[in-house]
Amino acid sequence: MTEYVPFPSDPSQETVVPIEPLRKLISSVLERKGMFGYEADMAADRLIDADLRGKHAHGCRMLGQLIAAMDTGDIDPRAEMITETESAAMAVLDAGEGVGQVAATKAMQLAIRKARETGTGTVAVKRSRDFGAAASYVQLAVDDGLIGFCTTSTSGPTVAAYGSRTPATADNSLAWGIPTREGAPLVLDLSCAGASWAEVKSHALYGMSLPAGWTLDADGRDTQDPNAARTLLPAGGFHGFGLSLVCSVLAGPLAGGKMPSQKRHGYLTEPIEHFFYAIDFSKFIDPQRFLDRVQEAVEQIRQLPPANGFDRVRLPGEAEWERAQHCRQHGLALHRDTVAELERLAETLGLKPEW
Amino acid sequence: MTEYVPFPSDPSQETVVPIEPLRKLISSVLERKGMFGYEADMAADRLIDADLRGKHAHGCRMLGQLIAAMDTGDIDPRAEMITETESAAMAVLDAGEGVGQVAATKAMQLAIRKARETGTGTVAVKRSRDFGAAASYVQLAVDDGLIGFCTTSTSGPTVAAYGSRTPATADNSLAWGIPTREGAPLVLDLSCAGASWAEVKSHALYGMSLPAGWTLDADGRDTQDPNAARTLLPAGGFHGFGLSLVCSVLAGPLAGGKMPSQKRHGYLTEPIEHFFYAIDFSKFIDPQRFLDRVQEAVEQIRQLPPANGFDRVRLPGEAEWERAQHCRQHGLALHRDTVAELERLAETLGLKPEW
Repeated sequence: MTEYVPFPSDPSQETVVPIEPLRKLISSVLERKGMFGYEADMAADRLIDADLRGKHAHGCRMLGQLIAAMDTGDIDPRAEMITETESAAMAVLDAGEGVGQVAATKAMQLAIRKARETGTGTVAVKRSRDFGAAASYVQLAVDDGLIGFCTTSTSGPTVAAYGSRTPATADNSLAWGIPTREGAPLVLDLSCAGASWAEVKSHALYGMSLPAGWTLDADGRDTQDPNAARTLLPAGGFHGFGLSLVCSVLAGPLAGGKMPSQKRHGYLTEPIEHFFYAIDFSKFIDPQRFLDRVQEAVEQIRQLPPANGFDRVRLPGEAEWERAQHCRQHGLALHRDTVAELERLAETLGLKPEW
Repeated sequence: MTEYVPFPSDPSQETVVPIEPLRKLISSVLERKGMFGYEADMAADRLIDADLRGKHAHGCRMLGQLIAAMDTGDIDPRAEMITETESAAMAVLDAGEGVGQVAATKAMQLAIRKARETGTGTVAVKRSRDFGAAASYVQLAVDDGLIGFCTTSTSGPTVAAYGSRTPATADNSLAWGIPTREGAPLVLDLSCAGASWAEVKSHALYGMSLPAGWTLDADGRDTQDPNAARTLLPAGGFHGFGLSLVCSVLAGPLAGGKMPSQKRHGYLTEPIEHFFYAIDFSKFIDPQRFLDRVQEAVEQIRQLPPANGFDRVRLPGEAEWERAQHCRQHGLALHRDTVAELERLAETLGLKPEW
């Protein structure tokens, strides 16, 4: 069983940053690198969404990598999205090697528009880049009152098959979002491996050892040393392996892209594919009845007696939602190295953080 | 980590039955109970599909329950499927409390037809009954050269939340099917709990104890006794719990049905909801290129060095596909109690098995 491991946190290594100045700084940095203002805002929003959920490796810690990839020409800050194929219910988009957060936001927005017309919208995207946190995009659907699903490819294989000693597939992330009437929506954000490389890196950053069952070393042996980890293990054995293959096809060959085992380039230079699916439940049934039933079930589950080691029963995404609410009021706690890197980046571009 | 546990099998307790006579017998039994001939054939096909995959609890072992539910009026053998809502890409169907296997087959066929027109088809079904093995329906999409997804509700809550001591959600099954160019297609069939009640019952039938981490007893303690099991544990903790909630909404309120915690009736009398999603990849991209890439990746993964305890690396659904191929040639090994029950059922209806 894959145990939930809280994201590493240690206040003595962190700086609390106010959110609006942070958003403004990121957007300004991206605009200086050539992005259009509204697309820079879009990317900044997605990076901060990820930080608010505690997914810091997909948050503004990515900004430096993004800028570096723009400098080497691996990401085009003004890429144009091209529609390759389209019907009332689906589309295939070519993201032109632009910023993943922008391509993915636009693609989910298109899926939402199609769902409002025909009940569902499915959009596959090719030639994009790392989009960060999958939860951010299903949250866009939820904010518009729709059910959303998304998944993404990464680069080459880094995750063992169920039953292999070496990497077979990728650590695709996938997310589902379902609106509730009030409080936290249901937002399920999974990686197909028991843990993501981002989480492994965060453990290394904080000098923490990994939980057992997350990774294999170069010789195919279990390791708890984040610096020795070379292969991730799939979550739940054949569950995570199977889901990873499905995600690799939806965000891969279905969009005209490759499977993980056919990818040779590294992270941030390999073309990345995404897949989005939005469902407008008001086209299926009475939306009030839908929300009544989901809300009632959520409250029934919250009232169950917790198992040992749990203070209460939480729904998927609830802890992240509570965290985001808290950060919106009190500011965002980021690792001091992340903040220093942001300040350094800003300075090189002649910008000054307003904190 | 959820380990793969082979379906129980013990040749000394089994009888090998030829497939065509079995199919004919089941169809004749169902026709005698009032079903239309082509719908009886449809139901027989799905029961045998399940047996061929080794999912015997969803196979012809269900026939007796089906007949009993028809006798009590809980299943209508001549139910009419009503289309409640429809667009080019989606539909909501009312199955009229008919046979789940028939409702689900027709619903997936509709999703396939819509996908052929607009690229994707999404069909939600309400007021159905247990449809058996989810893999059978995605196989229908695969047989037609499409990607298929399906999930289903069951009855009330029997699976713990991640972090609860008592049942919170249901053991929804879900399946994805993806065509390959040759050999086994990718067919991923998961239950959201680490194991299904069907598997627990099979262990009881064969007098085997359960793997650790599958179930809790009436007091919320871990148990390996299949007869003492009262609550299933979710697969991979929050993974399985989250997927179960998503499936419960898609095959539930989205179709006009209830969430598991709102269900009060028992198995085979509670209205069941299903959800189907078909993707015609030829509407997205060049289908030959799609198949080339999927096929190449499958072969690359099969050639990886196996981990300890594995003879080779298999793709999802491959073992079940090999098993089905073998049974088609050599007949189907069923538990002798299942065969005796079938023969008894046939006799009461004046039918004689042709084996």
